[in-house]
Amino acid sequence: MVQKPAPDSARRSERSRRAIYDAALALVGEVGYPKTTIEGIAARAGVGKQTIYRWWNSKADVLLEAFLDLSEQAARAAAQPGQDPQDGIPDTGDLAADLKLVLRATVDELLDPRFEAPSRALAAEGLVDEQLGAEFVGKLLEPQLQLYVRRLRSAQDQGAVRPEVDPRIALELFVAPLAQRWLQRTGPISHAYTDTLVDYALYGLAPR
Amino acid sequence: MVQKPAPDSARRSERSRRAIYDAALALVGEVGYPKTTIEGIAARAGVGKQTIYRWWNSKADVLLEAFLDLSEQAARAAAQPGQDPQDGIPDTGDLAADLKLVLRATVDELLDPRFEAPSRALAAEGLVDEQLGAEFVGKLLEPQLQLYVRRLRSAQDQGAVRPEVDPRIALELFVAPLAQRWLQRTGPISHAYTDTLVDYALYGLAPR
Repeated sequence: MVQKPAPDSARRSERSRRAIYDAALALVGEVGYPKTTIEGIAARAGVGKQTIYRWWNSKADVLLEAFLDLSEQAARAAAQPGQDPQDGIPDTGDLAADLKLVLRATVDELLDPRFEAPSRALAAEGLVDEQLGAEFVGKLLEPQLQLYVRRLRSAQDQGAVRPEVDPRIALELFVAPLAQRWLQRTGPISHAYTDTLVDYALYGLAPR
Repeated sequence: MVQKPAPDSARRSERSRRAIYDAALALVGEVGYPKTTIEGIAARAGVGKQTIYRWWNSKADVLLEAFLDLSEQAARAAAQPGQDPQDGIPDTGDLAADLKLVLRATVDELLDPRFEAPSRALAAEGLVDEQLGAEFVGKLLEPQLQLYVRRLRSAQDQGAVRPEVDPRIALELFVAPLAQRWLQRTGPISHAYTDTLVDYALYGLAPR
């Protein structure tokens, strides 16, 4: 059976959608969130303002989807052969190895210039604009953190994490240091650094 | 011997200086860093613009000192009787207790409304303005983190922290989660929360 090609209008829509994502991310990285407008995004993407309003209600919505799309691309790029990136954090039974793998991919994403400026601009605005911050934390950051919660719960079932540990707090021991170094530029980030965070968090600073 | 009173001009200077700190912190919290000006600070403090330029070169310098002053006030308020707040983190020989004490005081400071809005505004600007961010990290944040480095080194001498641990990374396991919850509002902060971070970091997530 021959696969039916996508109709022209669907292909045009997909092209417009991606042009709008790219324009929104580039613009917010260049001029910041407050000065980014639907008009500016439309002009840069080469589409009419109405095209954007047909699909989204606000610039926050456009940016949210653009970031979700960027994260999905990064997840697909980092996925192991045969692994569905939607499955979240791999579970090979070796917790340290699985966490290190995902955090190394996160380091690569944070160092990707397509990601850097727009993420930083949006994070900055989220610190002062409480509503925007809540939306992005709720829809973008927290769902990613919940993947760690799931992996840590599974590790508890396997006896690799103490049963009394709260996974939602535990994940912060390796996720938050990476976030702070990247956001506030308090230190360099690398695969060796996130590997170290995982080892310290799992085995503790005190002698065993 | 009778103590000589401070001359009128010195007392006036000290009053002006504090009024300028208060005005700078209030203003940056209300309108953000980019819209805060030396003129605005002077007007709000009820001093001439020249008074500010006599003591500082830029609004970044005024704010830096205002924050240092606020932190010193908080450190004095949190200090134990007989303890000099300049001595840094107490060293009673009980690392967990000492860290919990300091982090509880930090939680109190972060929840103080005088601190909240200006810190958030400045942190937000530091994310996008690399030079400002570097200045505030270097002069304000990093010196505080170095107090943890000192305390963790002393713990290594006492055998309470493994000798191969890098103290500069180790401190991030309990400092960065608190910073991220507060800055990005990813979760509530409390004394119970920071106590938990210290326990997880010292004893690790894996069973012992």
